[in-house]
Amino acid sequence: MRDTYHEELDAVTDRLVRLTQLVRTAMARATTALLDADLQAAESVITGDAEVNRLNDETEEATLELMALQQPVAKDLRTLVTSMQMASELERMGDLAVHIAKIARRRHPDSAVPQQLRPIILEMGTTAELLITKTGTVIATHDDELAKELEGDDDRMDALRTQLLTRILSSGWQHGVEPAVDLTLAGRYFERYADHAVHVAHNMIYVITGEKHEED
Amino acid sequence: MRDTYHEELDAVTDRLVRLTQLVRTAMARATTALLDADLQAAESVITGDAEVNRLNDETEEATLELMALQQPVAKDLRTLVTSMQMASELERMGDLAVHIAKIARRRHPDSAVPQQLRPIILEMGTTAELLITKTGTVIATHDDELAKELEGDDDRMDALRTQLLTRILSSGWQHGVEPAVDLTLAGRYFERYADHAVHVAHNMIYVITGEKHEED
Repeated sequence: MRDTYHEELDAVTDRLVRLTQLVRTAMARATTALLDADLQAAESVITGDAEVNRLNDETEEATLELMALQQPVAKDLRTLVTSMQMASELERMGDLAVHIAKIARRRHPDSAVPQQLRPIILEMGTTAELLITKTGTVIATHDDELAKELEGDDDRMDALRTQLLTRILSSGWQHGVEPAVDLTLAGRYFERYADHAVHVAHNMIYVITGEKHEED
Repeated sequence: MRDTYHEELDAVTDRLVRLTQLVRTAMARATTALLDADLQAAESVITGDAEVNRLNDETEEATLELMALQQPVAKDLRTLVTSMQMASELERMGDLAVHIAKIARRRHPDSAVPQQLRPIILEMGTTAELLITKTGTVIATHDDELAKELEGDDDRMDALRTQLLTRILSSGWQHGVEPAVDLTLAGRYFERYADHAVHVAHNMIYVITGEKHEED
């Protein structure tokens, strides 16, 4: 019985790691779609979100069932409750990738990103990818030192978003209102994606150490 | 022992209802701040968020403790797990009100809302207030029929956001990029606020009936 229980706990972790992979791919493709007006990439993100939702639902069911049947205490209870929260945050990250893909689709065959802003958007995409990759590693390896690194990456994302808004609001902005609206939203979605990755990492610190990480 | 337990469960519910009241006031004030460039209202939302965060933390601690000590099953377990999720969603709603208050503060002494768009923003504010008021009632009374009403209100919020974006992107837009950016973000924050209210209501349907409400 006890063995099956721990196998099921491991299965929950596997699902979370798988979710990080799915939402990493989703955001990488959404960034490509946005930069290159790649409609196929955009559609694959939008279609692929069903699998993310399914894995989140499965995780929630599995954790609730384990809680009800096994009556876990201390670290196991913490792991289960937190796993459910993490799956839900990862699911939101998938939604944010979908929102970015939809901006790309709406502007296709044009790109929503003026040439001069491509470097910022590209770096927001790579920063997002870095964050979710580290998040996956933290979940798989329980490396709480790595988990703490994510805050620095999140600060970078916030700085990029500020840069983006500064450019949009500068007197030199010549692209009109539509790209301003698109990029304001895209910037917000990247920022929230990073926030969720940091929340997941903080949740893992809680699982590993039992200590709540101070949220802003 | 059993009595204390149920008193503590009731205390969790009371905290959730209190949270709905706090985030309703926060959004009402944030809307006023945005429409009337009311700096004092904006500051009160920003300062008041600490109390929202504190109540969320308390709810999380109380529910984890009850789960660990009482080993609840079935409906009680569902209530505790879900209460934690609801507190976290309500806390996010408080953050969204803060984001709107900060837009108002950034533009003060000007208003971020051009005259012609005041009716839309006003209705987004009243729709938000309606949603959170119903959410509070659903939590307090376990009225799952009322919980289902929230989807219609959320559809109204989505329609208002679409109207807002259509106005911003129309050829008649004469207010430049800054108000476009402000209102694009404000629209997104109102929309997310409504989404969270609907999630909380769906969570309550799950508590009451044991049935998961289908999410979009």
